[in-house]
Amino acid sequence: MLARELAEEFPVVSLDTDALTAARMMGERRHPGLIVCDDDGRPHTVLPASQVLRFIIPRYVQDDPALARVYDEHKSDQLLTKLSHKTVQELLPKRQDRDELPVVDPDATTLEVAAVMARMHSPVVAVLDNDDQVLGAITISRLFEVLFPARSDD
Amino acid sequence: MLARELAEEFPVVSLDTDALTAARMMGERRHPGLIVCDDDGRPHTVLPASQVLRFIIPRYVQDDPALARVYDEHKSDQLLTKLSHKTVQELLPKRQDRDELPVVDPDATTLEVAAVMARMHSPVVAVLDNDDQVLGAITISRLFEVLFPARSDD
Repeated sequence: MLARELAEEFPVVSLDTDALTAARMMGERRHPGLIVCDDDGRPHTVLPASQVLRFIIPRYVQDDPALARVYDEHKSDQLLTKLSHKTVQELLPKRQDRDELPVVDPDATTLEVAAVMARMHSPVVAVLDNDDQVLGAITISRLFEVLFPARSDD
Repeated sequence: MLARELAEEFPVVSLDTDALTAARMMGERRHPGLIVCDDDGRPHTVLPASQVLRFIIPRYVQDDPALARVYDEHKSDQLLTKLSHKTVQELLPKRQDRDELPVVDPDATTLEVAAVMARMHSPVVAVLDNDDQVLGAITISRLFEVLFPARSDD
């Protein structure tokens, strides 16, 4: 099976997508991350959901999560408003910490996709066409469905 | 909302679970990882699906995934048989590279769960009871459903 057949739809946003919209997409579509594209539609990076939390939650609470229990509902809600009027661009960490997006071309074999995921410790690869536009993405669990099918006697 | 209410069922295996069974679980249940427990049921680590691929795929193919295209179907299938008669324990990297499992207690608040995920860059936390048994796990996309609900006018 080739990458073009394995690819599924994956949420894609641009650098100037509203940050709250991006966060809602991950919840609604139950995805742990989004592909972020440049204005020309080429993939720029992955925005992992955990990065959104790193943006919202004060450093000292990240250092000692038990402190979060002293936040009441009002104060928690206030934290979430930090996303208002922000863009995806503003959520991204500085370049060196940014997650590189693993990519393959549509003719990559199953084993090639697996090798890219293994190399980059990545649970997802984007499938790009000849113009570097995102055709979709292959998640590692989809790849495992194909590589390790349920036994027929299951 | 508290961790006990957010927790969902998550695939759990033990160190001596058959490696192929573990790989099939990830495909069938579309999960990018499994919680690995010790014999006493306490969580030991997370087995990310990418680690299974790192075990199977030869180092030189990981270094240059394009080489995978020269593998024919028979040779690809041979790689997958590397999982036969192996246990989950044998797939795990040496301790220092192993993913620590982020955990919370059942009374952790939504914000505390978020802080643990932010701190550990983790898309999942395990919820443990008083005896350190796994009650379930909270994925970051489930957390986002609660933190960033769809607007009522959507």
